[in-house]
Amino acid sequence: MQRFEPNLRIPGPTALPSAVREAGGRQMINHRGPEFAAMFGRIESRLKGYFGTESDIVLLTAAGTGALEAAIVNTLSPGDRVLAVTIGAFGDRFAKIARAYGADVTRLAPEWGLAAEPTLLRDTLERGAGYRAILLTHNETSTGVTNPIRELASVARELDPDALLLVDGISGLGAVPFAQDAWGLDVLVSGSQKSWMAAPGMSFVSVSERAWSAAETARMPRFYFDLAQHRSGIAGGSTPWTPAVAVLFQLDVALELMEREGAASIFARHAACAAAVRAGLSALGFELFADRRYASNTVTAANVPDGTDWNAFNAELKQRRLVVAGGQGKLQGQIFRIGHLGSVTLDEILGAIGVIEEALAALGRPVVAGTGVAAAQRAGLESAATEEVVA
Amino acid sequence: MQRFEPNLRIPGPTALPSAVREAGGRQMINHRGPEFAAMFGRIESRLKGYFGTESDIVLLTAAGTGALEAAIVNTLSPGDRVLAVTIGAFGDRFAKIARAYGADVTRLAPEWGLAAEPTLLRDTLERGAGYRAILLTHNETSTGVTNPIRELASVARELDPDALLLVDGISGLGAVPFAQDAWGLDVLVSGSQKSWMAAPGMSFVSVSERAWSAAETARMPRFYFDLAQHRSGIAGGSTPWTPAVAVLFQLDVALELMEREGAASIFARHAACAAAVRAGLSALGFELFADRRYASNTVTAANVPDGTDWNAFNAELKQRRLVVAGGQGKLQGQIFRIGHLGSVTLDEILGAIGVIEEALAALGRPVVAGTGVAAAQRAGLESAATEEVVA
Repeated sequence: MQRFEPNLRIPGPTALPSAVREAGGRQMINHRGPEFAAMFGRIESRLKGYFGTESDIVLLTAAGTGALEAAIVNTLSPGDRVLAVTIGAFGDRFAKIARAYGADVTRLAPEWGLAAEPTLLRDTLERGAGYRAILLTHNETSTGVTNPIRELASVARELDPDALLLVDGISGLGAVPFAQDAWGLDVLVSGSQKSWMAAPGMSFVSVSERAWSAAETARMPRFYFDLAQHRSGIAGGSTPWTPAVAVLFQLDVALELMEREGAASIFARHAACAAAVRAGLSALGFELFADRRYASNTVTAANVPDGTDWNAFNAELKQRRLVVAGGQGKLQGQIFRIGHLGSVTLDEILGAIGVIEEALAALGRPVVAGTGVAAAQRAGLESAATEEVVA
Repeated sequence: MQRFEPNLRIPGPTALPSAVREAGGRQMINHRGPEFAAMFGRIESRLKGYFGTESDIVLLTAAGTGALEAAIVNTLSPGDRVLAVTIGAFGDRFAKIARAYGADVTRLAPEWGLAAEPTLLRDTLERGAGYRAILLTHNETSTGVTNPIRELASVARELDPDALLLVDGISGLGAVPFAQDAWGLDVLVSGSQKSWMAAPGMSFVSVSERAWSAAETARMPRFYFDLAQHRSGIAGGSTPWTPAVAVLFQLDVALELMEREGAASIFARHAACAAAVRAGLSALGFELFADRRYASNTVTAANVPDGTDWNAFNAELKQRRLVVAGGQGKLQGQIFRIGHLGSVTLDEILGAIGVIEEALAALGRPVVAGTGVAAAQRAGLESAATEEVVA
């Protein structure tokens, strides 16, 4: 049975609620006028709540990778010692950007599927600190692992207090609690097409006072991503280069929807959907790729079962209009990934697990119909109940 | 009398036709899937026609300024001698980017309002050639001047044959005839929110074989704007970082509309609207800022009349919902600019000129009602008739 609309379960771009979609169809306005400035202000103040910061947030017209570059080139100089804590493809990319601009990069790279344990960072910094910056990934989209950023930041602050903490929060912010200022993070990055329920094209960079100071002496070359050029316009609600206005129309509406739902409900919804995905896949015999203790609430990776060809499996999913993501880099063909962030709800997850059940059956694997969806439903409801008690 | 919808007459973002607008409201798709790849291919092949190139065109998620940076950092190394031919704010910006990345920049900067005359470039290169690159602006948005790129390129090729020609075509391409390959231009840049009738967020960089070769040895650091990382995905219809999918939805529809209208008609429409703006403003006593021989067909700048306060004048325009642009940099308060590119039609220009007439009257200046619009109408129709004969 085929859905009329695809069930878009990749970890971004995420499916847009109708009101958000439609905002992308508005007529253009002057990006130097008062209507734009008012929208800019609303977006700015609402993002700050999810970032957990009082700092200015720079809005860049770029994919998240551009915002990661901004984090590097605005705070560092060629030759600076940088510790890149990487647990997957996006952590690797962050490290590569630093290297491309001439940083002296040391990698701390646990096996893919694992988190960066605070003890590992402690050991590393005890053997030698004095880094100019430490690069951290909040939620590693390629493996479905969420790092314990608070604890990692605490270790870094203790053992290498002058190191700037630059954090890729692209695929986790907005879906789980976060506190940039309280945790002492210097630069924090996210992107419109993830939990924010808008189309891709805008990314966000919040910058601590310490990082703004670093920017004054940082010598890596920059122009388009020069954050100082953006900072002066923030109070007046403008950007130095023409922004992706239609994406901001969408983001403005999405943040309004998020405000109505409330952060606690959003976080509980993500936790419930994640629990449902993990339980559903496990019940169907899939081995989850991520360390359970650090399993992401926004994306889940599972191993492609032995003896199953990824392309054949994915063809069965696609035929039923379930769109998931494959593995990246060395994990291509080995894992697949389900996004559960942004506008995701439990019923969409049940639908996805149901299609996965069907696909397994179509490939001749023994499946008792309903096993996956029942487990997903139970776990989802249980998580939702628990979160409500907590909230 | 106030319009229901603003008459958006800034030089970008330009007003979107309904079909384009609505495409921005579509649901997200997988940017690694076949639907995206097919769209990518259509966009690529249609842009090439307006660029006049057989080269690959890289689609960047960035404002035009990002694409200018890409042109620089992919072809040059720190210390390279660069001749920046600048006739306004955007030419200055192009030069600043080169300088930010360590190029040794010589500026050739005629007075604002003038074009770069080929004889001036000839004199300059005869006094000393051997530049690694020459930066040229096709259409200078800050002054409303279109440079004679073909002739400038011809002089450059003759006197400094090894210099790469990097061209900012952001606000002119798609509105006037252009021939990158025939004119021997190496890198050519444009942006979605100009003549292309889509929202801002995507920019385009076409790269000659000579420029791809230069990229192999160019040592300016780059990552997000590394064109080589984009090149490998073009044949398969994908981008290395998540693109602004909704802007591409719009661009795809806009290019389809452009194909139906036909390039010759599009160019004639722009010529007619430009002629109408110039005639209408002149009839109302405005002094045009640009050298008439090189007046742009996409944006017209006029002096704010002596004794008239720009803010008071603009307030009258805004009250009647005509949105124009002020002067940039040193021209703030001195000139104003009317955009006539993208979906612009003669009737919209007549409406704009009519509002300007009203605003002048409201400020107590002597205006015979109908003077401006009549002159605009005559010039617009005359231009359209001439262009038809030519076509």
